[in-house]
Amino acid sequence: MTDVTEGKIWANSGDSHIIEPPDLFSSLPADVKELLPRSVKDPGGAFETIYIDGQEFRREVPQPTPGTPKKKGLGINARPVDSTEDDFLRRALGGNDAAHRLRDLDDEGIWAEVIYPSLGIWTFNIRTPKVVRHGVRALNEFALDFQRSSSRFVCAASIPLLDVDDAVAEIRRASADGFAAGFLPTRPPLGRPIWNDEEWDPMWAAFAETGMVIAFHIGTEPHDPTERTGVHYRGRGGAVLNYVETTYGGQRAVTQLIAAGALDRHPELRVLVSEGGATWGPFIADRMDEGYRQHSAAVRPVLSRPPSEYLFDQVYASFQHDGSAVAAHVAMGWRNVLWGSDYPHFEGTFGHTQKTLHELFDGVDPVASERIRIGAFHELFPHVPLPPAAGRNR
Amino acid sequence: MTDVTEGKIWANSGDSHIIEPPDLFSSLPADVKELLPRSVKDPGGAFETIYIDGQEFRREVPQPTPGTPKKKGLGINARPVDSTEDDFLRRALGGNDAAHRLRDLDDEGIWAEVIYPSLGIWTFNIRTPKVVRHGVRALNEFALDFQRSSSRFVCAASIPLLDVDDAVAEIRRASADGFAAGFLPTRPPLGRPIWNDEEWDPMWAAFAETGMVIAFHIGTEPHDPTERTGVHYRGRGGAVLNYVETTYGGQRAVTQLIAAGALDRHPELRVLVSEGGATWGPFIADRMDEGYRQHSAAVRPVLSRPPSEYLFDQVYASFQHDGSAVAAHVAMGWRNVLWGSDYPHFEGTFGHTQKTLHELFDGVDPVASERIRIGAFHELFPHVPLPPAAGRNR
Repeated sequence: MTDVTEGKIWANSGDSHIIEPPDLFSSLPADVKELLPRSVKDPGGAFETIYIDGQEFRREVPQPTPGTPKKKGLGINARPVDSTEDDFLRRALGGNDAAHRLRDLDDEGIWAEVIYPSLGIWTFNIRTPKVVRHGVRALNEFALDFQRSSSRFVCAASIPLLDVDDAVAEIRRASADGFAAGFLPTRPPLGRPIWNDEEWDPMWAAFAETGMVIAFHIGTEPHDPTERTGVHYRGRGGAVLNYVETTYGGQRAVTQLIAAGALDRHPELRVLVSEGGATWGPFIADRMDEGYRQHSAAVRPVLSRPPSEYLFDQVYASFQHDGSAVAAHVAMGWRNVLWGSDYPHFEGTFGHTQKTLHELFDGVDPVASERIRIGAFHELFPHVPLPPAAGRNR
Repeated sequence: MTDVTEGKIWANSGDSHIIEPPDLFSSLPADVKELLPRSVKDPGGAFETIYIDGQEFRREVPQPTPGTPKKKGLGINARPVDSTEDDFLRRALGGNDAAHRLRDLDDEGIWAEVIYPSLGIWTFNIRTPKVVRHGVRALNEFALDFQRSSSRFVCAASIPLLDVDDAVAEIRRASADGFAAGFLPTRPPLGRPIWNDEEWDPMWAAFAETGMVIAFHIGTEPHDPTERTGVHYRGRGGAVLNYVETTYGGQRAVTQLIAAGALDRHPELRVLVSEGGATWGPFIADRMDEGYRQHSAAVRPVLSRPPSEYLFDQVYASFQHDGSAVAAHVAMGWRNVLWGSDYPHFEGTFGHTQKTLHELFDGVDPVASERIRIGAFHELFPHVPLPPAAGRNR
C-alpha cells in the first residue's frame, strides 16, 4: 500500500463494482450459455445491445462527464494495452485486476469495499430458472475468486430469484463459500411478487440464519425490453429526473421489508442500500411511523416496535457526495450512514475521492466521521481489517 | 378567540382542507353538472363511489384510528344534528363552518391555514375542458366565500388543467379575486405531459406574474378508474407502503419544476408541497446536484445555479409529526420547513395538536421553532396576520 500522506482520510466504501470478463459463461452448457446476458457494443460505442434469454435491451452507454478530473498521472494517452478508449473513459481500468485495484484504492483513500457484480444486474431479467441458477453460479465463482485476492474486498453474491428454493440454496452455499453479503435488486424479477410477499419469507430466514447482509443496489429494477432501459423521463431535465428517481426503489425495498414484518421476525437481519443516498433514512422512518399510527386500523401485520426502530437499527445506506447524509447521522441520530465510492464508475468519486472526503468530513466531530467512514461498514463486516491508524481517526 | 393559556403554542398550518357542500354544482347547466364529481356512499359507509365525467371510482372511505383522541369535551354522543356518525368519526365537524372552525383552531393552537379543496382533487379526472372550467369556477367561488370569513384562511384556488390557456385565465382571475395560492396535483391529468414539459411554461409565468404560490398537495395523482383508488400495494404492510408512497409524488413535482428550469426562469416563483413531509428537501437537493454534476454531459437545460439552490430558496414543504423535519431545518439549513395540521382530517393532528407541537418544539431553539411554526408560512402569505404574541415566540 502507498504511504499515508499527511491529510489523507481513509474510508470504507459501501458501494463498489466489478465488471465480469466477457468469457465468464464460456464453459457453461451451450443451451444455458446462449440465454445468459451478453453485451454487444455498436461500432461507435455510444450504444450497446444486451441479449438475455431471448430478449434484447438496447441502451445508451453512460458517457464520461466532460471536465471530470481523470486519474492523476494517467493521462488519456496512457491507455493500457487491450483496453478501448471507451472503456478507459468510462471507468477506472484497475477495477478488475486485484493489484491494480488496490493501488487505485490506496491512491483514492478507499479502504475496504462492498463489491457488486455488473452482469449480475442483468440476471434479474432471465426467465428460465435453470439458466439463472447456472449463471449465478458462474458469477459467484468469479466474485469469490476475486474476493480471495484481498481481505479488503467484500463481494456480494448473486442470488437466483425465480424460485425461492433456489435462492435459499444459493444463499446457504454462498455463505459456506465465504460470502458475507447477498445482492438483491430493489424489485424482484418481473412476474414475481414484491418483497412484502409471503413467498420471500424463506429467503429472509436464510439470510438471517447465515448472517449474510442483504445488499440492495439501487437502479436494479428489472424492466421489460420494450422500455428504454433505465429511462423514466424524457425531455427537459430528464437526466436529473432519472437520477433522482433511482433512489425511490431502495426506499421502497426497505419499507416493504419493514412493513411486512421481516425485520421484526429476524432481529439479526441487516440490510444495506447502496448508492441511493442516506438522508432518506430518518425521513422514511418518520413517515412509516406516521402511516402506521394514523392508519393503524388498516395495518397488518402489527409489529413489535414502531417501524422507525427497524430502520434505525437494522438498515444501513451508502451515499457519495451528499452533505445532508452526514447531518442525517449527526443531527437525526441514524448511526447506519455509510460512505460509498461507486468505484470504478466515473459517476462515483474516482479521481476526486480525497477532495470529496475532505469536503464532507473536515470539521465534523471525529467520532461521527469515523462512524460514517469506517465504523458502520465494520459493524456489518467485522472480519474485514481496519484501515491504517493514520487517516482513520479524523 | 379563546384565552391563550399557559404553555400553549401557536402554529400556522401549511396543510388544511375544506369539504364542499353536496349541492355545490346544483346551479350549473345540466350537461355540465352531470359530469362533475359526486360521491355516493354505500349504506354501510365503508365504501363510496365517485362519479366523474362518465367514470366511476370506488374507494374505501378512510376509517378513524381506534384510540385516536377525540375532541376534548365532545364525546361520541355529542354528534351534531345533520351529521352522520360516519362523518363525525372521520373528521372534525367544525371544518366547513367558519365560526366553528375558528373555535376548533383556537382550541388546537392552529392559527392560519392553507386550505385545499376536497372535491377539487377529483377535477383532475375530468376529461372535458368545458366541464372542468365550470366546475373549477364553482369550487373557487365557494372557496373564496369561505376565505372571506377570516383573515386566517388562505384558500388554494383550483386550476383547470386540460388546456393551459384555461389555466392561465383562471390563475389571473383567481389572483384578482383575492386567492394567494393555486392548487396543483402532483401529476397533471391523464393524457397531459408531466410538469417538466414546455406546455406548462405559460402557467408558471402566470403564477410568477400574479405572485400566487403554487401549492401541490400530495396523493393527488390522477388515476384510471380501473385501478383501486390510491392503492399501489396490497398484502402485508400495504397500509404503510401506500402511505409512504404518497410522498414521492411531491418530490417528483418539485424535481420536474427545478430540472426543467421553471424556477430558474422565474426566481419569484414559490412552491409549497403539503402533507408529504419535509425532510426530503435537503436530500433531494443533494441528489439533484449529484445527478446534475455527474451526468452533466446529458443535462438540459443548463441552469444558472446548482439545482439545490432553487429547492432551498423557492420550495417549501409541510409535515405533521416528523421529528426529522425539525432537524432538516436546524441541522440541514432548509429554512422553508413548515408545520401542517391536515385539519379537519383525523389522519392529521386534530385532537392532539398541542401534544404534537410540544413534542416537536419543546427544547428547540426559539428562532428555529418560530420559523417552522409561523415564519415560513408568513413569508409565503405576508398578508395574513400573526398569531397572538403569547405562544408565538417559544
